[in-house]
Amino acid sequence: MLLISKIALYTVVLLLVCAQAGNTLAGGDNAAVQSPKNVILIIGDGMDDHQISIARNYLVGARGRLSLDSMAHRSVVQVLTVDNAQPEKAVYVADSANSASAIASGSVTSRARIATSAGTDKDLPTLVELASAAGFRTGVVTTASVTDATPAAFYAHTNLRYCENPSMMKDALAYGRVPVDCSQDLIANGGLGSIAEQLLSSDLDLAFGGGQKHFAMLGEGSSKSLLVQARESGFELLDSKAQLDKQYPNKKMLGLFARSTLPVVLRGQGGRGAEAAVPKQNGVSLPEAMPCENNPKFADTPSLKLMTEAALAHLSRESQAGFFLMVESASIDKQSHLRNACGSIGEVAQLNEALDSALLFAETHENTLIIVTADHGQAAQLIPSVSLYSNPDLAIYSPGKLFRIITPEGAVMAVNYATNDFVSEEHTGVNVPLFTNGVGKNILPSMLTQPDLFGVMSDYLGLDRQ
Amino acid sequence: MLLISKIALYTVVLLLVCAQAGNTLAGGDNAAVQSPKNVILIIGDGMDDHQISIARNYLVGARGRLSLDSMAHRSVVQVLTVDNAQPEKAVYVADSANSASAIASGSVTSRARIATSAGTDKDLPTLVELASAAGFRTGVVTTASVTDATPAAFYAHTNLRYCENPSMMKDALAYGRVPVDCSQDLIANGGLGSIAEQLLSSDLDLAFGGGQKHFAMLGEGSSKSLLVQARESGFELLDSKAQLDKQYPNKKMLGLFARSTLPVVLRGQGGRGAEAAVPKQNGVSLPEAMPCENNPKFADTPSLKLMTEAALAHLSRESQAGFFLMVESASIDKQSHLRNACGSIGEVAQLNEALDSALLFAETHENTLIIVTADHGQAAQLIPSVSLYSNPDLAIYSPGKLFRIITPEGAVMAVNYATNDFVSEEHTGVNVPLFTNGVGKNILPSMLTQPDLFGVMSDYLGLDRQ
Repeated sequence: MLLISKIALYTVVLLLVCAQAGNTLAGGDNAAVQSPKNVILIIGDGMDDHQISIARNYLVGARGRLSLDSMAHRSVVQVLTVDNAQPEKAVYVADSANSASAIASGSVTSRARIATSAGTDKDLPTLVELASAAGFRTGVVTTASVTDATPAAFYAHTNLRYCENPSMMKDALAYGRVPVDCSQDLIANGGLGSIAEQLLSSDLDLAFGGGQKHFAMLGEGSSKSLLVQARESGFELLDSKAQLDKQYPNKKMLGLFARSTLPVVLRGQGGRGAEAAVPKQNGVSLPEAMPCENNPKFADTPSLKLMTEAALAHLSRESQAGFFLMVESASIDKQSHLRNACGSIGEVAQLNEALDSALLFAETHENTLIIVTADHGQAAQLIPSVSLYSNPDLAIYSPGKLFRIITPEGAVMAVNYATNDFVSEEHTGVNVPLFTNGVGKNILPSMLTQPDLFGVMSDYLGLDRQ
Repeated sequence: MLLISKIALYTVVLLLVCAQAGNTLAGGDNAAVQSPKNVILIIGDGMDDHQISIARNYLVGARGRLSLDSMAHRSVVQVLTVDNAQPEKAVYVADSANSASAIASGSVTSRARIATSAGTDKDLPTLVELASAAGFRTGVVTTASVTDATPAAFYAHTNLRYCENPSMMKDALAYGRVPVDCSQDLIANGGLGSIAEQLLSSDLDLAFGGGQKHFAMLGEGSSKSLLVQARESGFELLDSKAQLDKQYPNKKMLGLFARSTLPVVLRGQGGRGAEAAVPKQNGVSLPEAMPCENNPKFADTPSLKLMTEAALAHLSRESQAGFFLMVESASIDKQSHLRNACGSIGEVAQLNEALDSALLFAETHENTLIIVTADHGQAAQLIPSVSLYSNPDLAIYSPGKLFRIITPEGAVMAVNYATNDFVSEEHTGVNVPLFTNGVGKNILPSMLTQPDLFGVMSDYLGLDRQ
């Protein structure tokens, strides 16, 4: 007995050493039997390392740390895109549709596609569908329309991201200029209908964001609006921030808090955007530096943090099921397209605050895997506020547009937008960062592809990948 | 006896489980007593995530992995710079001098400084000095001049990076236009002299790179050239690739393989660089896409890999001392300044091959910490080869210069240079990646500053930080 006790003691000591040295998840694995597994995937649209560096400098100073900077583990993600006409051919810059589709379905596809395959247009099963089928609750939260590319890729299937509502399915123009044809997805043609209609028929337990305009019209071949159809399908409809404080047990929730994209938190002083430098005799006149200011249009818009907290409460309420929740800060990207650096900074702040709520939730829900990543790179570049080659006799300046910001720590930060000369900047093809909490530390490699990320999340939830 | 055997067996099994689960370094720690500790720090100058993504797409394809992608651990590094006149004030974009100084000395300083403090111009003790004082061998290897900012910051102290040789100390113009004054560093004024002179009086065991021109002149107040002084100081002088095959026991080594920067491996077809798009009726004429080709000027230049292997052999030969080696691929940055994407790609390839040699060395020298990082971000941006807003009726194009590359996997990759309209592009302020091997996995956090990196390396070697 004594010797057996010694063996036991020896074992305990060794296991303790082992656990300390290796961060083994022995404890977590045991606990997994009791506690449901949750995945919170937070996507910063266009949130590459430039966007993070720019936001960090403004929000917490050059030496500061955002919450995402302090997460347990950091990886990098390869963003993969292929050509629709030649699906074996690489394309080096993604859009939000194909990159979200890769994360949501595990398959690389072509730009503008929502969880459908390049070339062959086959529906690709998504995390929301697979998780729902396995008994998990599911939700999407975004600062864009709930029908926008990133959330849509998690629950819908179309050949074009533009088919957000019944009126956009055919003979339409996206952005007033891109011809749209999703006729094969029309319900009349045996399809699943527009993205808004697919949201209503999806297994989603909740969707929060903007996009009222996509639901305020009649459904295809129906005399009822999509809002009426939503209510009849068991959705509680929300359209104001105050409603997020209430509980809606046993209901699905559809929160639409703006006509389209939600207003952003910050903007340039007086609404100023990026401007061109102007050469002059003996030098150059750079755009005047300015602080960011609160965007008055944000007003009573629910923050991404508030929506995230309401979603976490709803998905975890009286449930042993576990959940999959996708949270998107959409306008890091959208404000960069518009060359509004303050706008993007505010949306990184929104993401960071939503992450704080997710981390707090995970403190009391131990098997919660939190992943923060971006879908693709974006145009904004942090360049010197005064050229490295500054010389009083020379006019050296960006050929694009500059947004020069006075940061709270009292320095000037110059953000350059120069990927094109159009009204909207281009995405970039840089690989994007990924951050995870302690739960993800040992299951996420230091580099992975977006389809790999689908694999990590579905394996964590034990989903049956098809 | 039987029970003791059982205990022993049980122990072995548990330790095996433990080692497998946690990659514990228990074995390594024991071995540390016997085996010297080495640090190989590989710096890709300007090698931010854009440069890596661009190089990866070209060298191994969008889905491929470079050796650095497969390293055990990945972090991100905050690049910190301050203003010289107001050293408490943040500056958001670094140059190679201040960023290398931060890594080499642990102190944040201002642009153009070589291991001296912002404002006060005090000498900051460097890794080469501290490691040498503690008995470690030391070396620097670079594809730039050995007196260029990045290597210089590890062994020299000047207020301006331009003071590379005796003729540049006073009343000189760097790049033909920047006024230079390092008069306080003149030997006649009690200073340490130019960077080249400081190299000769340093404790470096070896320096390989370019920069013959900086040593082919008389030393300050001397009738002897720096090359003669070098030989008299115990340096074996090398100037050809073949000499790297030989052994030079008990000698210091100074290998200068080009007049200035070493020629690069790749270039655009026929030497073509980035070009402007040209608007035309009904659209835009983009620069013709091209493959990269071997740069004929590279010819017999020793590769970074070859120089690294020779350095590793020399620093570890018949020694129990351990070493600190800094290896720089300098022209990722220099070719980006010149808007030559193929040039930068070839230099990422050089870094990756040098890393392969370092990893191979570490296989037989177990306490070798390998760190790969960049000093600052650079101008190159991977943008769509055809605009996301492509429309036959619109001419949408970058206002800067484009380098459109046909990749070996048969797609077109567009690299945009648009940070300024000068002959040389600007650096950027993005945070930069860091990669480490298994030895570094548990001692490098997921985010750190450049001064933190100094701390990690000096702690690993057990140096007495001052």
